[in-house]
Amino acid sequence: MLHTIPERDDIIEVHKRISRYIHHTPILTSKAIDQIAGCEIKFKCENFQKIGAFKARGAVNATLSLTHKQRRNGIATHSSGNHAQAIAYAASICNINAYIVMPENAPQIKINAVRGYGARIFFCEPTLKARESTIEKVIEETSAYFVHPYNDYNVIAGQATASLEIYNQFPDLDYVITPVGGGGLLSGTVLSTQYFSPDTEVLAGEPTGADDAFQTLKKGVIVPSVNPDTIADGLLTSLGDKTYDIIKKKVTHIILVSDNEIIEAMRLIWERMKIIVEPSGAVPFAAILKEREMYSGKKIGIILSGGNIDLTKIYFK
Amino acid sequence: MLHTIPERDDIIEVHKRISRYIHHTPILTSKAIDQIAGCEIKFKCENFQKIGAFKARGAVNATLSLTHKQRRNGIATHSSGNHAQAIAYAASICNINAYIVMPENAPQIKINAVRGYGARIFFCEPTLKARESTIEKVIEETSAYFVHPYNDYNVIAGQATASLEIYNQFPDLDYVITPVGGGGLLSGTVLSTQYFSPDTEVLAGEPTGADDAFQTLKKGVIVPSVNPDTIADGLLTSLGDKTYDIIKKKVTHIILVSDNEIIEAMRLIWERMKIIVEPSGAVPFAAILKEREMYSGKKIGIILSGGNIDLTKIYFK
Repeated sequence: MLHTIPERDDIIEVHKRISRYIHHTPILTSKAIDQIAGCEIKFKCENFQKIGAFKARGAVNATLSLTHKQRRNGIATHSSGNHAQAIAYAASICNINAYIVMPENAPQIKINAVRGYGARIFFCEPTLKARESTIEKVIEETSAYFVHPYNDYNVIAGQATASLEIYNQFPDLDYVITPVGGGGLLSGTVLSTQYFSPDTEVLAGEPTGADDAFQTLKKGVIVPSVNPDTIADGLLTSLGDKTYDIIKKKVTHIILVSDNEIIEAMRLIWERMKIIVEPSGAVPFAAILKEREMYSGKKIGIILSGGNIDLTKIYFK
Repeated sequence: MLHTIPERDDIIEVHKRISRYIHHTPILTSKAIDQIAGCEIKFKCENFQKIGAFKARGAVNATLSLTHKQRRNGIATHSSGNHAQAIAYAASICNINAYIVMPENAPQIKINAVRGYGARIFFCEPTLKARESTIEKVIEETSAYFVHPYNDYNVIAGQATASLEIYNQFPDLDYVITPVGGGGLLSGTVLSTQYFSPDTEVLAGEPTGADDAFQTLKKGVIVPSVNPDTIADGLLTSLGDKTYDIIKKKVTHIILVSDNEIIEAMRLIWERMKIIVEPSGAVPFAAILKEREMYSGKKIGIILSGGNIDLTKIYFK
C-alpha cells in the first residue's frame, strides 16, 4: 500500500498487479479525425475498459493493495458514477462486500450496473452533505474500508497505468491530454509521463461549467467546485490535496471547453470512429479542436476516459 | 473480372487485391454480451471498415477489376446508402470519376460523405422508377460503368473477404450469421464458408418489415421487396438472381426480427460494447437473441455490417 507519491517502480508493479483484472485497452487512430484536427492523435480507449471507464484501474489497485484485515469487512464509497461501478467490480474480484452510497436520482442503468456486481446500495438525497453523512453511517455499521475516488496514492498509481500503456506503444508523443475532475487520472498521467516519457507535455481539458482545476492552477490554492453545471458528469468534483500536489508540478495549461464544444467533439468521435465516449471522455478532444492551431502537426495521446452514457438522452441536433 | 460464381482461389486473390484499400477489421468479444445471449459470439466489426460498412470491400474489388477501358469514363450507381459511399471511395482510390444517383430526401450526412470523396451527385425523386431512369440518363451522358450494389460476382467476391478474415482467425465456428437485403454479403459469406469452413452453418437475419428473402427461400422464386417498412434502412432491397442462386444452396434458415427487437439488440451493442452499429448491422444479433435456446453454448460469428447512422434520430427510450 502506497503512502507517498508513487515512484517509477511502483507504477510498473501496480500495472503487473492489476493486469489480470483490467483490459489492456486498444489505441485507435482515425485518418478522418486527424484531418479534421490537423494533428496525429492516438486515442487510448478506456471506454472499452472494464466497467466502461479507466476508474477500474485505480479501484482494482486500491482494493488489491489492502491487507486481508483491511478488506475483511468489505469496501465502501459514495459515487453516482463510474467509481461506484469500479468499486463494485473490484470487490467482486476480491470476493468481498461492497457498500455504495448513491444519490436517489442516479440513473437506473448505473444502479443496475452496480447491483450487477453484487454490491449493496444505500440511497441518499442528492447533496454532498447527505452523501457524506450516509457513507459515515454505512462505515460505522459495516466497518468497511473507505476507498476515495481519486485522492489516494493507490488509486492514482492505478490510473497512471493507462498512460504507461500509451508510452509503451508510442514513446514519441509531443503531448498527452486527459480530462480533469478530481485529478486522479491527470495526476497519474503526470507521474507516468515524468517516469516513462519525460519529453511529453501533459495537458488537461476541463468543462467551462466546472472550471475549478483551472482556477486552482491560476490561484495556487485548491478552489472547490461549487454548483458545477456541465454535461460532463464525471468531472464535477474538486482536486484533492494529493492530486493537486502532483498536478501542479507538471501541468501548466488546462484548456476550458463549453458543453457545445464537448457535444461536437463527442459527435465527431461517435460518427467518424464508430465508438461511444461519454461527454467527460470527449473533453480532451474538444480541447485539442479548440486550440488546433497550437497543436498543428503534433503527435498527441488522448485518453478517452469512459463510455458510460444514458442513451435515452438526446445530445445531437 | 469474374463472370461466374467465384471459386476458392478467386476469393483469396480478391482479398489480396483489396487489402491495401480496406481495413482488416477487428473481431471483438464481450463477456457481458455472451452472458446475455448464452453463447460465444465473435463480432466482426465492419462498422470500423472504410466508409463505415462492409460495402467498401465489394465496391473496391469491382472497381479494381475493371479494365482501363471500362473504368476510363468513371463508375456510376444509384444508392441512398452505404453503396453510394463505397463507390465514391472506390473511384477516389482509382482516381476516376464517380456519378451517384441519390434520392433528394437522402440524409445530409450521407450526401456530405459521398461529396467528401469527390463524387458527383445527381438527385432524383425518392422512387425506384426515378432512380432507374436517372441512372440510365447519367450513364448515357457520361459513358460511366454501372456497378450494381450486390448482383455482381466481383461485388460478391469482395464481400466474401469479411468472412474469410473471420475463418482465418476462428476456424471452429458453429454458425456464422449476416443480415440479408440484396444478398451480397450473405452470398459472399456462403461461398467463403463453403471453401474455408465447410462445417460452419450459415444463417441470416432479416427484418419482419422487409421479409422478401425469407419469402423467397420459402417459395423457391425471387419475391420482390414491395413497400418495405423497417428502420433497417440497408436491407430494403430484393435478392438478385446471382445472389439468390448462391444463397439457396446453403442457407436454410432466415430469422425474422421486428424493429423493436433490432433496437434492443442495437442498444445492447452500444451499451455493452461501446461501439456504434446501424440498425441493419444489429439484425443478426437480434436474430440470435430471438432464438437463443437454439444457439445455447454455440460459437457464433456475427458480421456487424455497418455503423452509419443518423445520430439526430432517437432510437432508445
